[in-house]
Amino acid sequence: MADRGHADAGRLGGPSGVDQTAVRRANLARVLDEVRRGEVVSRAEIAARSGLTKATVSSLAGELIDRGLIRETGLRREGAVGRPGRSLELDGSGITALGLEINSKYLAARGTDLAGRVIVERRLGFDAMHTRPEDTLDRLAGLAREAIAELSDQGSAHSFLAGIAVAVPGLVDADTGRVRYAPNLEWHGVAVTESLRDRLGNDVPIAVDNEANLSALAELHAMEKPAADLVYLTGEVGVGAGLITGGRLLRGSSGFSGEVGHVPVDLDGGLCGCGRRGCLETKIGLPAVLRAAAPDLIAADADPQDQAHALRRRAEDGGPEALAGFDEIGRWLGIGASMLVNLLNPEAVVLGGYLGTVAPYVVPSAMRQLRERAVAGDAATCRITASAFGFSAAVRGAASIVVEEVFTDPLRIPSGDEPSTAD
Amino acid sequence: MADRGHADAGRLGGPSGVDQTAVRRANLARVLDEVRRGEVVSRAEIAARSGLTKATVSSLAGELIDRGLIRETGLRREGAVGRPGRSLELDGSGITALGLEINSKYLAARGTDLAGRVIVERRLGFDAMHTRPEDTLDRLAGLAREAIAELSDQGSAHSFLAGIAVAVPGLVDADTGRVRYAPNLEWHGVAVTESLRDRLGNDVPIAVDNEANLSALAELHAMEKPAADLVYLTGEVGVGAGLITGGRLLRGSSGFSGEVGHVPVDLDGGLCGCGRRGCLETKIGLPAVLRAAAPDLIAADADPQDQAHALRRRAEDGGPEALAGFDEIGRWLGIGASMLVNLLNPEAVVLGGYLGTVAPYVVPSAMRQLRERAVAGDAATCRITASAFGFSAAVRGAASIVVEEVFTDPLRIPSGDEPSTAD
Repeated sequence: MADRGHADAGRLGGPSGVDQTAVRRANLARVLDEVRRGEVVSRAEIAARSGLTKATVSSLAGELIDRGLIRETGLRREGAVGRPGRSLELDGSGITALGLEINSKYLAARGTDLAGRVIVERRLGFDAMHTRPEDTLDRLAGLAREAIAELSDQGSAHSFLAGIAVAVPGLVDADTGRVRYAPNLEWHGVAVTESLRDRLGNDVPIAVDNEANLSALAELHAMEKPAADLVYLTGEVGVGAGLITGGRLLRGSSGFSGEVGHVPVDLDGGLCGCGRRGCLETKIGLPAVLRAAAPDLIAADADPQDQAHALRRRAEDGGPEALAGFDEIGRWLGIGASMLVNLLNPEAVVLGGYLGTVAPYVVPSAMRQLRERAVAGDAATCRITASAFGFSAAVRGAASIVVEEVFTDPLRIPSGDEPSTAD
Repeated sequence: MADRGHADAGRLGGPSGVDQTAVRRANLARVLDEVRRGEVVSRAEIAARSGLTKATVSSLAGELIDRGLIRETGLRREGAVGRPGRSLELDGSGITALGLEINSKYLAARGTDLAGRVIVERRLGFDAMHTRPEDTLDRLAGLAREAIAELSDQGSAHSFLAGIAVAVPGLVDADTGRVRYAPNLEWHGVAVTESLRDRLGNDVPIAVDNEANLSALAELHAMEKPAADLVYLTGEVGVGAGLITGGRLLRGSSGFSGEVGHVPVDLDGGLCGCGRRGCLETKIGLPAVLRAAAPDLIAADADPQDQAHALRRRAEDGGPEALAGFDEIGRWLGIGASMLVNLLNPEAVVLGGYLGTVAPYVVPSAMRQLRERAVAGDAATCRITASAFGFSAAVRGAASIVVEEVFTDPLRIPSGDEPSTAD
């Protein structure tokens, strides 16, 4: 692992050098994207689709092969015509990505290769809310080291970790990797990137982002036809939203978008953990649904995934208390969703966390509210669906942003003959 | 006027032709943008900044001169070094843009040249709510014809109307130019582009968009340093928002974003015109503020601009009823703004319409709410400011999108030697 150093794309220096690097980066990304989408594709096909000359495509393809991102294959896609050429397909088996997640009740890791093949997946119960940040980061670093070792063992001989991304349930300054405030971790101003880099002692890039943002990206990257406008709604102890608009993550001016959990829906309502009254989180957060539908399942140290499955069994048993509780949760969910729909007009609201698990029991009453409250009527009544990823969406999203970063900037991956800068 | 036909950018045909046209369009736009930003700039400077070769820049500049978009000047900017060359500056005096607005209480027109110089400005009181759509469109077409005649008279000899854009207070399908629903006009399914084209009988492109969207773009285009994340909040009979996120207008999946006026802020509150209860519009729409601060100013047929100025005088007089009323309006404004800030994390919320006029009397209590309710605290407490454009923001925005469209796609403007397709 780390036998090649991280490429410094800016080292050509000077304004004109930077411009040329930008052009080369964009063209490499273009060719790589054609190979990824085409599965198996010839240089001539790429040239035809991209508008680049065949000579340019050949040179760029050589560079991508050299960086271990694509490889040659003798095969052509079925049904293709003409003489068989040396086609290209995605390689990236030696290039890996690591996603990590800090949740108030667990830590998780997911390592994949560039094609998204899962190489390592770990999840351990952990009471982060009652642990000091430095101890939580120690444990996370331990989990990361184990995962990195496994990525290195199971990856190809010359495996290269392209990056690490960490999902956190809070407000994150993505530029510095600093968590400003994470209410359900009781974190204020924790420098995650810096702390983790110190603990891991390597030069792998480490990104940190909000769990709802990363979950939304996980949904987006997994879609056959990505939705340009999508809301991912987390349902755990906290409630937050990852917003995709115009095909991109909506971050806001300082990266603190999507705080739907603390939008007031009932100004005279119950007290929220944030100190305000009637926040949406007090209506549809996991503690609220437990109180409403299954008070006996409330246990401070329980894993939210286990609680969600217990809740779902309760609903399947059809107890009247549970069903009435879910109906009420669905009503508030619909009120929250209608706000998002009236403002953002998304194609879909995707429910994550426990909301995804109990979706069949809350979506009908949510949809009734949405139909009643969407200003544009049917024209903007989007669907409310369950995420297929359950509680793993955030850590999936974390791994996927590392992968996407490589596709956007293939120069992040050093070529085989570049000198290593890592120890 | 219309002595040159509208250029058909797609006419080169075929996939590779389209690709080459796209490249040429992007390069022309790049050069045009450099000239616009530089005020007076040489070909060599453009080449250095854009990374294009000097030969390419010269060829592109020639084409832009031919299309009447830029012109040569002997002057160089003060302080520039080297021998004086033939520099370039924005021309566009012969290229005009027309913005129109349909409001429930007035119609407006604004015609500018490409540099944004105002050539014609009209505004007439008109009770669109109690007029049939076809009669309103007849009157609008009359206004447009007068404005076009004036643009033609006052523009240069070979003036060319690049486009028309119409602002409407409602849900607009921007692709077809059809108004789906405009509650304060009582319009359902009105084909504005088609109707106006029939009435004007020319081939000028006609765009239709929501007034809050266009107002937000007017703010954005007028900023020295455009804010990437901005909310424009209209305050007229209706309340709506134009949302700029990541530097672009947030349209949503079917173009119906920004309907903040009908987000419920008080589920047990008063009945809204839309049939629901406690919508934000019932708290901060112009009728609400008149009831709260100056009930004697309520008059069905009054121009909202006059009402706003009367309201402001009332506040300046400092009557206790008025001040208490404004304070309460400010409180609800702050509750609405905090929702937008928690979701979208904008740099600024810009108040338009009457809210802009009375801003000094509502912003203090709004800011108190915002500080209390912004989850990210100071980090995401954006400023709430008044638009400088009063009730003209929408029609300004309409004219400005036509201008911006030309800067994005200079091929829309035919060259001097292209045959005219207009009659």
